[in-house]
Amino acid sequence: MVDFASRMDQMKASEIREILKITQRPEVISFAGGLPAPEVFPVEEMKRVSSVVLDEIGGEALQYSTTEGYAPLRRQIADRMNTKVGTSVTADHILVTTGSQQALDFCGKLFLDQGDTVLCESPTYLAAISAFRAYQPRLRGVPTDEDGMIPGALEELLRDEKRVKFIYVIPDFQNPTGRTWSYERRRSLIALAEKYGVPVVEDNPYGELRFTGDHLPSIKSMDTRDLVIYVSTFSKTFCPGLRIGWLAAAKPLHEKFVLIKQGADLHTSSISQREISRFLDLYDYDANIARITDLYRKRRDTMIKAMAEYFPGDVDFTRPQGGLFLWVTLPGHIRSAELLDRCLARDVAFVPGDAFFPDSTVTNTMRLNYSNMPEDRILEGIKRMAAAIREYA
Amino acid sequence: MVDFASRMDQMKASEIREILKITQRPEVISFAGGLPAPEVFPVEEMKRVSSVVLDEIGGEALQYSTTEGYAPLRRQIADRMNTKVGTSVTADHILVTTGSQQALDFCGKLFLDQGDTVLCESPTYLAAISAFRAYQPRLRGVPTDEDGMIPGALEELLRDEKRVKFIYVIPDFQNPTGRTWSYERRRSLIALAEKYGVPVVEDNPYGELRFTGDHLPSIKSMDTRDLVIYVSTFSKTFCPGLRIGWLAAAKPLHEKFVLIKQGADLHTSSISQREISRFLDLYDYDANIARITDLYRKRRDTMIKAMAEYFPGDVDFTRPQGGLFLWVTLPGHIRSAELLDRCLARDVAFVPGDAFFPDSTVTNTMRLNYSNMPEDRILEGIKRMAAAIREYA
Repeated sequence: MVDFASRMDQMKASEIREILKITQRPEVISFAGGLPAPEVFPVEEMKRVSSVVLDEIGGEALQYSTTEGYAPLRRQIADRMNTKVGTSVTADHILVTTGSQQALDFCGKLFLDQGDTVLCESPTYLAAISAFRAYQPRLRGVPTDEDGMIPGALEELLRDEKRVKFIYVIPDFQNPTGRTWSYERRRSLIALAEKYGVPVVEDNPYGELRFTGDHLPSIKSMDTRDLVIYVSTFSKTFCPGLRIGWLAAAKPLHEKFVLIKQGADLHTSSISQREISRFLDLYDYDANIARITDLYRKRRDTMIKAMAEYFPGDVDFTRPQGGLFLWVTLPGHIRSAELLDRCLARDVAFVPGDAFFPDSTVTNTMRLNYSNMPEDRILEGIKRMAAAIREYA
Repeated sequence: MVDFASRMDQMKASEIREILKITQRPEVISFAGGLPAPEVFPVEEMKRVSSVVLDEIGGEALQYSTTEGYAPLRRQIADRMNTKVGTSVTADHILVTTGSQQALDFCGKLFLDQGDTVLCESPTYLAAISAFRAYQPRLRGVPTDEDGMIPGALEELLRDEKRVKFIYVIPDFQNPTGRTWSYERRRSLIALAEKYGVPVVEDNPYGELRFTGDHLPSIKSMDTRDLVIYVSTFSKTFCPGLRIGWLAAAKPLHEKFVLIKQGADLHTSSISQREISRFLDLYDYDANIARITDLYRKRRDTMIKAMAEYFPGDVDFTRPQGGLFLWVTLPGHIRSAELLDRCLARDVAFVPGDAFFPDSTVTNTMRLNYSNMPEDRILEGIKRMAAAIREYA
C-alpha cells in the first residue's frame, strides 16, 4: 500500500464526528455540536450585501485577490478589535483566514517541528489539538482551574519542558468548559510568556458573546513584546458557513503567516470578504450580536435551571458568562462515554469530555452545547439525561 | 526572537508576488499573472443563484456543513469528471477543497516527511512547489519535452531516488509551458506509477479550456490501482474568487484527506458550494466554458501571431492548444530576469522562467499569460517586448 507521512499515525477520526452523525436524525436532542443558532443568521441582509457587492464591482468580486485579505475588511477588523478587546493593531497586522481553524493550523505550521512542545489548557479545544497534531508536537496540558491556567504550574512547564514553541489559550468562555480567565491570570500569563520569550496563541471566537459581567481585556492588549497571536472569527458573531476568520500578529510573524497562506490556499474568498465588509458598513453589528446573546442567554439559563432541578446533587457544572458551551463533572464512578450510550438510547446527545484532555485521562466529564436547541428541547433533553444519570448511578 | 519551525527556512516570498505588485499600476500591460478574464465571469447569474440559495434554504446555507463537501455538488463534480475526463468516480471519491491550491497542500501533508522525494515536471507550477516545500521534501525535476515527462528519465529516478512519495504532473495545458502530454506518455506514466507503487497527483485546472484538437483521457481515467489523486478547480472554468476546488481519490486516500481537511479549515464555504451547485443546475456550464475558450483562443492567436511577426527568429515559443499560458525560450545569452527589467521600463510584465524549475537553473525562459489582457494590449505588449529583446541582443 501507499506510504503516508508519519504525521498520519496521529491523525484519527474525531469521536465528535461520529456522534454528530447520529445527531443528524431530527428526533435527537443534541447538545453535542458547537453550532450557532441559524435562526439568528442575517439571511435577508446577506441577500442584500451579496447583490450590493456584485452591483458595485462586478467581476472583481469573483476574481483572485490578495493573500493578506480584503484591505477594507482588514481595517474594519482592526478597528473592531481595538474597540472591543483593547488592542492597538492596524490592518497591517491582520491576515484574513478560511475560518479561525485555518489560523490554528497556520500556528502549527509556523512554529512546530516534530517533538516541539505546545502548552495548552487542560481540557482544551479539540479541533485545535487536531490542527496542531498534524505537526507532531508534544502537547502538554497545564493544570487549569476556574480562573485559567495556574501560573505556578505553567512556569514549571516553561522551565522544564524543552522547546516550548507556544502557549495556546482560550481565555473567554472557553471551549469546552465555558470558563473565563480572571484579569490576574491574564497578567500572569503574559508576564510568563515574556519572561520565557514564548509566543501565545490567544483564541477568542466567543468573546463578544457575553451574557453578564464586564468584558476583560484580551491577552493581546497586554502584549508589549509582540508575542501574542490573536485568533478570531465571524463564525459565532455572524455566520460560520462563509468560513471567514482572521489572525492578528506583529509584522515579522504576519509576514511568515502570509507565506504559509499562499501555499495553503492562496487567499480567502474574495466575495465573502467583501460581503462581510459591506455588512459591517450597512448594518449594526452590535445589534446583531445582541440578538445572538439574548437568545443564547435564555438557552443557557434554561439549561442551568433544568440541570439544577433534575440532575443529582453530586453532579457539578459550570455557569458560563457567555459563549456556547458548559461543562459537567459527574461523580467519579460515572464514565461519560457509557452515559452517552444510555442518553443516545433516549435520543439525547452530548460530547464526553475525554477527548478534550491533551495528555491525561479524565472519564467523568462532558461538554454540553446550548446554542443550537430551542428552550423546550433543552428542558426535555436535560430531563432525559437526568434519568439516564440516575439509572447509571 | 521567536523560534520558527525549520520548514520556514525554505518558505520564501515568491518572486511572482513582487512582480504582480508592479503590475497593479493600470498602465502596465501584464502577461505576468495567471488571472482569468473577469469579463466572462457570470456576475448576473451569481446574483441570481445567491438569492435562490438563500430563498430556498435560508440559514442552512450559512451554517457549518460537512468536511467532505456539499453532497449534491460532489455528485455533480463526479458526473462531470466522468463525462469530461473519462473517469469512473462517484461522489464518495470527491473532497471539496478551498481552491485546488488546498488540495496540493493536502497532498504534501498526507505523504511527505522531511527528506521524502517528489518527482515533478521541469519546469512545473510554482505554487505547487511552494505548497510541497512546507513539508521539506526533496523536489526532483524529471526531464520533460513537448509530449510530457520522458519515461526513461522518470524510471531512472523512480529506481534511484529513495522514498519517492508521489509524482506531480499537469498533463493538460501545463503551467508554465502550455504543453499537453501525449496519449502514449500518459500510458507510460501510469504504467511506471503502478510498477513502482507510487501515487500520482494529476493537477488539471485548465483541461476543459481546449481551443483546438481532441481531449485526451486523464491519467485518473487510466488508474486501475487507485494510485491517482485528481485535483481540479472551478477557478478557471467559473471564477476563482469563490475558492472552490476539489480532489478525487480512492476511498482509503479520501478518508485521510478528510482528516486533514478537518484540521486545516473544517470545511469549504457552505454557501459558495451551494451557489456553484445551483449554477450547474440552472445554467449551461458548457456554454460558459465556450465563452471563455472563445475569448482565450483569440487572445492566444493574437499573442502567437505578434510574437511570430515581431520577435527575433531565434526566440522559440510554445503554441498551446488550450489553457492560459505559453512559454518562451530566448537565445541562451539572454537572461529573462534582466529582460524583465527592460520590459518593466516599457510597462510590460511577465514572469521569468527560473522559479518554475524545481532543481535546476535555467535563465533564458519566460512564462506569458494571455487570458487577462485584451487583444490590442497583447499586440502592443509583444511589440514592446520585441523591442526590449532586440535592444538586449
